[in-house]
Amino acid sequence: MLSFDIVKPLLIIDKAKALANIQRMQAKAATHSVVFRPHFKTHQSGVVGEWFRQAGVDKITVSSVSMAHYFADHGWDDILIAFPVNLLEIKQINRLASRIDLQLLLEDTAVANQLNELLEHPVGIYIKLDVGAHRTGIPMENERQVLELAAEITKLDKLKRKGLLAHAGQFYHNPGGITAMQSDVNTISKQLGRLKQQIGDEKLLLSWGDTPSCSMLESLPDFDEWRPGNFVYYDLMQYHIGACQLNDIAVAVACPVVAIHPERNEMLVYGGAVHFSKEFIAADQNFRLYGFLVKFTENGWSDPIPGAWLSGLSQEHGVVKLPVVLAQQFKPGEVVGVLPVHSCLTVDAVGIQYTTEGELVPKINFA
Amino acid sequence: MLSFDIVKPLLIIDKAKALANIQRMQAKAATHSVVFRPHFKTHQSGVVGEWFRQAGVDKITVSSVSMAHYFADHGWDDILIAFPVNLLEIKQINRLASRIDLQLLLEDTAVANQLNELLEHPVGIYIKLDVGAHRTGIPMENERQVLELAAEITKLDKLKRKGLLAHAGQFYHNPGGITAMQSDVNTISKQLGRLKQQIGDEKLLLSWGDTPSCSMLESLPDFDEWRPGNFVYYDLMQYHIGACQLNDIAVAVACPVVAIHPERNEMLVYGGAVHFSKEFIAADQNFRLYGFLVKFTENGWSDPIPGAWLSGLSQEHGVVKLPVVLAQQFKPGEVVGVLPVHSCLTVDAVGIQYTTEGELVPKINFA
Repeated sequence: MLSFDIVKPLLIIDKAKALANIQRMQAKAATHSVVFRPHFKTHQSGVVGEWFRQAGVDKITVSSVSMAHYFADHGWDDILIAFPVNLLEIKQINRLASRIDLQLLLEDTAVANQLNELLEHPVGIYIKLDVGAHRTGIPMENERQVLELAAEITKLDKLKRKGLLAHAGQFYHNPGGITAMQSDVNTISKQLGRLKQQIGDEKLLLSWGDTPSCSMLESLPDFDEWRPGNFVYYDLMQYHIGACQLNDIAVAVACPVVAIHPERNEMLVYGGAVHFSKEFIAADQNFRLYGFLVKFTENGWSDPIPGAWLSGLSQEHGVVKLPVVLAQQFKPGEVVGVLPVHSCLTVDAVGIQYTTEGELVPKINFA
Repeated sequence: MLSFDIVKPLLIIDKAKALANIQRMQAKAATHSVVFRPHFKTHQSGVVGEWFRQAGVDKITVSSVSMAHYFADHGWDDILIAFPVNLLEIKQINRLASRIDLQLLLEDTAVANQLNELLEHPVGIYIKLDVGAHRTGIPMENERQVLELAAEITKLDKLKRKGLLAHAGQFYHNPGGITAMQSDVNTISKQLGRLKQQIGDEKLLLSWGDTPSCSMLESLPDFDEWRPGNFVYYDLMQYHIGACQLNDIAVAVACPVVAIHPERNEMLVYGGAVHFSKEFIAADQNFRLYGFLVKFTENGWSDPIPGAWLSGLSQEHGVVKLPVVLAQQFKPGEVVGVLPVHSCLTVDAVGIQYTTEGELVPKINFA
């Protein structure tokens, strides 16, 4: 058991694992001679931000204007908001641009013009490309549209053209193995290089995202900047696709056991959708996997207990499936750990977090 | 458009609809001569609690010790925590029991004894029965186990036996139509009556939960207390199973439009998993439905826009599918509304909420 009292669901961070994850990714980025601009939406914490700063990071990525304000308050002065500009937040954007080196995302000429009208200070602009995730961005094959926007930006005095931004969100699901991923990345990289050449701006940064490819691939050719985020903690989804080892997962949710049901190979824990979110991995026979069960040790947690997994979530209830011999070993009043499927959403959902040493780790509070 | 500024995702509450939902359920409970002990986990708000109080409610249900403390601070003095006792929170439970009439849930003789040892003040006890959801509780057919626990409780000086508690969680999914639901409820009611008779305690309350059956069924025989919660706001899941009309849904998430993709019948809104949770309704052709699109009016919102729905969520991004003719009508910088699939989780996830009149509605903040 950890050395401090746990009475309700908390996020527990293994700082040593998180630091190792940060150092490994930073070293890899250095080997590739790219700017390392990690995404801070995973941890959302000023304290964890300091762990990155101590590792030499000075540029970051966030996913909302609110998050940018939070990290600006924590002394970060070069922040990219990797989300299409929300014109409605122009006041908040202007406040940010007056105090830090702010980078924004655009994919639309009309929005570029409106933004330029409304801005009071210059900002850096990345053009958002869709490289296969089909979530947002200009499809990278639509060269004319990219070139038009790239040209338009140079006409607008408050917009400083900085880069082309890609996020291969498709790699989080059905990555199709490392060979297919490498082949996709090579194709994307080639097309981005072609766009850069057509735009004719040597200084244009090719900015690349996503934890799966930054973790798994040996070669990420021709990109100038990496923005992975999830790798700081990893999770079962990343383990599932091969982006990390189980031992790299740096967060577990501490859940009190409240009832044992050996007659159906289950126990109930205090820890539900409001702590984990409802992200799951679809498993065989229509089962949903919401987490792996671990036991806390004095300064961390065990390997996952074979055959024990979080199989159902309602608001505060978590149903754990486990072999009957194990069900009989647990008792109400104990605390178990659960490795989450998606650490970004779990971190966002759980209110309170501590390191394994019992140090409180504050994060953004939007309420 | 609503008459106040919206710049980022907010929960908007239609107070008139919520009040009508409260009054309708309260009137139905009165017709059935039952105690109305609504579940407050859906709204988690002291202000919304006052709407219930003004409608005559003086007993409530919550799903955590933390929530009980919050509502005790808001003047509620008879609170049932409808979650199996978490022995680790004994200090917090003792603090609560010293100031309010506290009701707890038990399903295990060993836990009953441990609880009695640790309690400093008497509490009311409901025995949790599993009536088909298989989440937790003693299976209602295990009569011996129920009788043993019921007898044990009378031997323990701090535990006052109050009732048998059922929550038919199965009705939220695959309810199998109103006739099947009515038949199930009749069976459960009969079995609970039988258990009550065997226990031989005339004053034992049969406590019944769940918004679907309390909304849909004309007859809920022999129960003494109702604890529905979701009905205050309802949502698409309840609409989907027939528990409410679209017009009864009392919450919508306001989402700024940030990008339009008519080439694939989509637009992107600021509003993601951290606002909606990831609950979905499985629709045809493997589509997932995360919400219906509405337009805000001066004092509320429109009917859902036919053919427009939230089809994908990542952390802050929401992908809306919509016919191309509609996609061309929206512009970045507008605000649209989304009726959520599961209001309880959405309320929990969205940080900030207002009524349609622009009144701030504070809720619990666990961070």
